[in-house]
Amino acid sequence: MLATRALDTVADFPAIPDGWAYLDTAATAQKPRPVIDAIARAYGETYATVHRGVYARSADMTVAYEAARRRVADFIGAASADEIVFVRGATEAINLVAQTWGMSLKPGDRILLSQLEHHSNIVPWQLLRDRTGIEIDVAPLTTDGRIDLDAVETMLTPRHKLVSLAHVSNVLGSILDCRRAADLAHAVGAKILIDGCQSVPRLAVDVAALECDFYVFSGHKLYGPTGIGVLWARGDILEAMPPWQGGGAMIDRVSFERTTYAPSPARFEAGTPHIVGALGLHAAIDYVEAIGLDAIHAHETALVRATREALGELNSITLFGPEDSAGIVSFAIPGVHPHDIGTILDEERIAIRAGHHCAQPLMEHLGVNATARASFGVYNVQADVDALVRGLQRVTRIFG
Amino acid sequence: MLATRALDTVADFPAIPDGWAYLDTAATAQKPRPVIDAIARAYGETYATVHRGVYARSADMTVAYEAARRRVADFIGAASADEIVFVRGATEAINLVAQTWGMSLKPGDRILLSQLEHHSNIVPWQLLRDRTGIEIDVAPLTTDGRIDLDAVETMLTPRHKLVSLAHVSNVLGSILDCRRAADLAHAVGAKILIDGCQSVPRLAVDVAALECDFYVFSGHKLYGPTGIGVLWARGDILEAMPPWQGGGAMIDRVSFERTTYAPSPARFEAGTPHIVGALGLHAAIDYVEAIGLDAIHAHETALVRATREALGELNSITLFGPEDSAGIVSFAIPGVHPHDIGTILDEERIAIRAGHHCAQPLMEHLGVNATARASFGVYNVQADVDALVRGLQRVTRIFG
Repeated sequence: MLATRALDTVADFPAIPDGWAYLDTAATAQKPRPVIDAIARAYGETYATVHRGVYARSADMTVAYEAARRRVADFIGAASADEIVFVRGATEAINLVAQTWGMSLKPGDRILLSQLEHHSNIVPWQLLRDRTGIEIDVAPLTTDGRIDLDAVETMLTPRHKLVSLAHVSNVLGSILDCRRAADLAHAVGAKILIDGCQSVPRLAVDVAALECDFYVFSGHKLYGPTGIGVLWARGDILEAMPPWQGGGAMIDRVSFERTTYAPSPARFEAGTPHIVGALGLHAAIDYVEAIGLDAIHAHETALVRATREALGELNSITLFGPEDSAGIVSFAIPGVHPHDIGTILDEERIAIRAGHHCAQPLMEHLGVNATARASFGVYNVQADVDALVRGLQRVTRIFG
Repeated sequence: MLATRALDTVADFPAIPDGWAYLDTAATAQKPRPVIDAIARAYGETYATVHRGVYARSADMTVAYEAARRRVADFIGAASADEIVFVRGATEAINLVAQTWGMSLKPGDRILLSQLEHHSNIVPWQLLRDRTGIEIDVAPLTTDGRIDLDAVETMLTPRHKLVSLAHVSNVLGSILDCRRAADLAHAVGAKILIDGCQSVPRLAVDVAALECDFYVFSGHKLYGPTGIGVLWARGDILEAMPPWQGGGAMIDRVSFERTTYAPSPARFEAGTPHIVGALGLHAAIDYVEAIGLDAIHAHETALVRATREALGELNSITLFGPEDSAGIVSFAIPGVHPHDIGTILDEERIAIRAGHHCAQPLMEHLGVNATARASFGVYNVQADVDALVRGLQRVTRIFG
């Protein structure tokens, strides 16, 4: 089945050569020319530091850096640019919340996660558990690989202070009903944090409509640079959070006796920020919004449908996750290690990922050590699906 | 006086237009063409994630990322690449040490800093003080603006567990006798952390010869990309440090009951790293080493000497710091706010910094709210000094 609303953007991506099927966008997205150009221009034409310079170049760079913050705020529907904290990526964002907001939790308080979370949405809470004595609950999945919100509803109690869930599973592509999850959390007085790594590149996201409290994502999965990501938190929550990293730019006044801190978001951006990363992220958001997130979602959903149909027709392929997965298909061939699948596909110029995808508890739930995963981006086309199917036919011939 | 071993590299720096005197390298360095090219190539030709891919492109990128780590290790004389942790910058590196190694400190333990430290080497220790009940001591400065190591010797006691000092002051350019500081620290059983932000771009650094325990620096001040920096720690110290941020790549095995962590440096690099930042830093180190740190130091020292001589001949300029400052000259014109100096110089196409330079305790010591600061890099020439002198003559005419 052909993608019904096919995009044709691969020419925008200079690092994707003809005939290479790049199916690892859930790990990291390739970069369109406008992003690469924005980065090269920032280093090669307009470079300066931000927030401190008294000269025009630095003032201009400060304007550009803060414009990137506003662009992110608009992109996800934040009420204000002051609610956007630039971090290295979603992992740092979650650690920041755990090590600041989380430190107000008390022994007996509980946090609810799910069985499909990425390690980055598990380990920071385990480290917090070690420090504060909180408890962690794990929501089960439905048989088709969604977070079971009916179970969440029965599990939540007034002891729960936070629900922290992936918007889109990085392994299964299953989409969370964020708004219902938020309502369930709020009904017991808990906050909700949404890991948006796999959703922001694939779905239109509006944090106000979703009524979440924290939303995090990484720039490099959104066609942007490495080393930049976003923590969004509701303004009143962010303002009440204590500082995490100390240093320049996050202070109001420093003396050895007593230091006072700047308001957020500056309070959480100690040191010289990844200036050019923010500018590159701005260009990436411009790029995806010019295509339109709804068009991207339709495109990837069609590619997933075509992939699942074609793989379903091959003998002995196990498909994981729901039919309406957002851009991600995990599968296995019984008796063949996923790494071997990946290696053989690589010989055919098809790049997939094989492994536990930083989601070992989900692997345990699926009863496997690893899966093979194909994940799509704006540059993928039906020919990539066809190549994957031919490649897998070769795998099954080799191991058959 | 002309710089005796003048470098002529400005043509390598596309963001420095003809006739622009960029004298704010201590805030951030401009980028040479090979660094910009390395970044553009990484995003535009060879891009992939690291450590996880089963396809050749990802394996190649992993090799490049780990080669950058080895390059950093060689550059600063580390015993092993495993002693190099990539972080956002020096600020994050110090926070990492404070929030991991530092958490083993007990009430009554003491840390010794100095009056000239950057906020990034003050505030993380104050945050640690709030959490652990340690005490902070502040070493005074000599009259010419060096950390007074004779005073340090008398101040240190067996209660001191850490001495944390700047190798080169970001305001005064004064150079620490690192080896003597290390010996003093070790004599009482303390560790020593050196903030190398301003030294690594200006002096040949060998952490083994200096006998320090921690050494940190930022890539963007070393002609590299934003968002990347380095924590070096002696292998045995690093290996004993608990994790800081939880997430992907830093774990050995995750389950909800029990998670085990990877060995260092992976344990401290949770999440997808700033891959392209590491590659750009590699290119930057290649660039400065091709020139030679000794040649860079001689070049900058000559420019400082020429600047101090010329400014000393102007009426009513106060010079701060020692005669042998490494590439940095802070000054004031009594009765003229440093910001006004900066603004007028900007009209003459001269970029300096004016402010507290994230060193408010040092400003207090100097008895000022702010200074004007000119700082040099490999691309500066005597003409930049001449422009600065003419610009300051104009300032004094306007305010005279």
